[in-house]
Amino acid sequence: MEGKIETLKGGTVTSPQGFYAGSTYAGIKEKADKSHDLGILFSESPCAAAALFTTNCIKAAPVLLSRKRLENGRTQAVVANSGCANACTGEQGLADAAEMADLAANGLGVSGDDVLVASTGVIGVTLPMKAIRAGIKNIALSRDGGHNLAKAIMTTDTVAKEVAVTVKLGENSFTIGGIAKGSGMIHPNLATMLCFLTTDAAVETAFLRLALRTASDISLNMVSVDGDTSTNDTVLLMANGLTGNEPIKRGTSQAHVFQLALNTVCVHLAKAIARDGEGATRLIEVTVGGAHSVEEARLAARTVASSSLVKTAVHGCDPNWGRVLAAVGRSRVEVVESKIDLYFEDICMMRSGSPQPFDKAKAAGLLGKDEVKITVQLNLGPASATAWGCDLSEEYVKINAEYTT
Amino acid sequence: MEGKIETLKGGTVTSPQGFYAGSTYAGIKEKADKSHDLGILFSESPCAAAALFTTNCIKAAPVLLSRKRLENGRTQAVVANSGCANACTGEQGLADAAEMADLAANGLGVSGDDVLVASTGVIGVTLPMKAIRAGIKNIALSRDGGHNLAKAIMTTDTVAKEVAVTVKLGENSFTIGGIAKGSGMIHPNLATMLCFLTTDAAVETAFLRLALRTASDISLNMVSVDGDTSTNDTVLLMANGLTGNEPIKRGTSQAHVFQLALNTVCVHLAKAIARDGEGATRLIEVTVGGAHSVEEARLAARTVASSSLVKTAVHGCDPNWGRVLAAVGRSRVEVVESKIDLYFEDICMMRSGSPQPFDKAKAAGLLGKDEVKITVQLNLGPASATAWGCDLSEEYVKINAEYTT
Repeated sequence: MEGKIETLKGGTVTSPQGFYAGSTYAGIKEKADKSHDLGILFSESPCAAAALFTTNCIKAAPVLLSRKRLENGRTQAVVANSGCANACTGEQGLADAAEMADLAANGLGVSGDDVLVASTGVIGVTLPMKAIRAGIKNIALSRDGGHNLAKAIMTTDTVAKEVAVTVKLGENSFTIGGIAKGSGMIHPNLATMLCFLTTDAAVETAFLRLALRTASDISLNMVSVDGDTSTNDTVLLMANGLTGNEPIKRGTSQAHVFQLALNTVCVHLAKAIARDGEGATRLIEVTVGGAHSVEEARLAARTVASSSLVKTAVHGCDPNWGRVLAAVGRSRVEVVESKIDLYFEDICMMRSGSPQPFDKAKAAGLLGKDEVKITVQLNLGPASATAWGCDLSEEYVKINAEYTT
Repeated sequence: MEGKIETLKGGTVTSPQGFYAGSTYAGIKEKADKSHDLGILFSESPCAAAALFTTNCIKAAPVLLSRKRLENGRTQAVVANSGCANACTGEQGLADAAEMADLAANGLGVSGDDVLVASTGVIGVTLPMKAIRAGIKNIALSRDGGHNLAKAIMTTDTVAKEVAVTVKLGENSFTIGGIAKGSGMIHPNLATMLCFLTTDAAVETAFLRLALRTASDISLNMVSVDGDTSTNDTVLLMANGLTGNEPIKRGTSQAHVFQLALNTVCVHLAKAIARDGEGATRLIEVTVGGAHSVEEARLAARTVASSSLVKTAVHGCDPNWGRVLAAVGRSRVEVVESKIDLYFEDICMMRSGSPQPFDKAKAAGLLGKDEVKITVQLNLGPASATAWGCDLSEEYVKINAEYTT
């Protein structure tokens, strides 16, 4: 059916035509299991590309380099590593990022200008370039290499995050695939997040940028794990056009279909990041409705999803809904207390500003599920938004008290 | 010596002349140890008064009532309880808060309009008025009752927070005393914080308000425990004038002395709150210098002090200074990475934007002290600010996963 979005079983960033990936253990992470820490994503033909980078004023060297190289809206590959963020590393960091791109470009037979760089890991340590020079030669690209690349960019992530969808569009079908990593230092306006998205659809660069911004705003920008924003966030969307369609332009029905498919991929990855938050045992989905504006709904939803007190209450299966309301209140969005309804799943805890009697055992049971839905209805206007977070556990503290040592 | 600020041993909110306090166990908290949960602070003569209330848009009933009653700048007493916040309780909550004030006023022989109310505890539950009606009769006021009142307003606090200073001013000496509670839901712009300050100095109301705002801005508004802002925050300053001095006016040398003394009291209480943060094992003091403006320095210092990743790193004695820099970066203050110096105590981790070699064992040892000092020098301008926080421990999660249940 025209426009129907189908999720591909086992789909990943190399599911769209013409994309290849590979990875290796270069020795950047000092891990006994030698889990991969260096990888490449490559398109057999040049791509129109769009990207979003961290809003942190301290930007890592790979972010500075990639942002500059993407000014022309084109790229063909990205080389990425985990274990070292190459952030707060001064001039040496910039030189290392450029060399890393050149090393990849040489192996791929493309210009260094057509290769981007992404890094994630510890801040304030320079890249072990000797290990990278040796390791990069061992990367073998393949059409199903996306799975390995998804693993190679993991840091404290416990599972690889990948998805792909196909959509019928006129005579053709196009595919959008993606992988992401992110587990800590995750907060609205990106996160310690690397996200690589690919499509074989032909898309005009201007619309590609708009579509990525739009999709990120309702997905990756609505995730919070711990309130910290990384120096390295990078979300990259590459479109190689191998589907052979007329390039998709803004405002067309094709653009609408493409946007929906991209939204699906990004929301999937955003939820996967929240669910795999450091120490998390469950996903929290917060919807705020009835706000005056989408901006207000977004702000309120994100504030609830990132509240330490809400997160610990969910962790303890404690239906302490007052913390949800307190978080909405401190978000500074307009509220009229006597109009607010508040639900945990389908249990109403507050109606028109008054506490409602509820079955505590049932509510505690709902909070123990893999996914916990919290809904706040402000009853003031037409706008709504959804944010995702995770519970805050003792394990989060353990992980982060011992990260570099 | 004129203007010298001396800390009184065992000082508390009833140290200034003419202030009395008392407390009782009314049964609002269901505690086996029957620790006190209801108390009164009273001045034998009417006071000029100033207060700051929560910035949360959802304001508890006692906040709404007290704010209204303080419009005339005068009060004589405050009745406070722990165990129930009387927040998100609708019309019933407002009626209960008013009744609680009236009950206290009857016992004290003053008008209900001269009594304020403060509550702290679980949100979304109405006050057990039967217990309060019975309990309030058992409160015996005394000149040294401040200690018991400090305990009666504790929730998850582990220690009472109290202080008093005396200052010589011309022929007279005046005293400023204070108690505070706050342990969780603590964040800049007040916190789940109740803070009662008293003085026997005569102070003009206009200056009293300014002095309270000024002192809070460098103390109670620079504390973060968990990023959440309560519905119930109340900081109250009562001046009964029994010292017999000419009322202190803005812009005078007396005003300067009074401000310094009030700052001392408020900083003491702010640090005590941070040190006693839920699950905290140590105090973190973050100073940001070299900022363009005090506002920027404040914002950056508070962002570092409230970063979960900084807090967990300190907890783990992990000198992961990149997290400090990442927090400064996301605070959105202007930074030039190549100008930044960063210190843990006296160890330089970064100079002019470049990582410095440092003794990891020594740095880890410093992070294990009771007080940890982090300094970020932006080297851009003349302004600096200090914020206080605490480490984030597994115990924080335990406390907050099990608060109402």
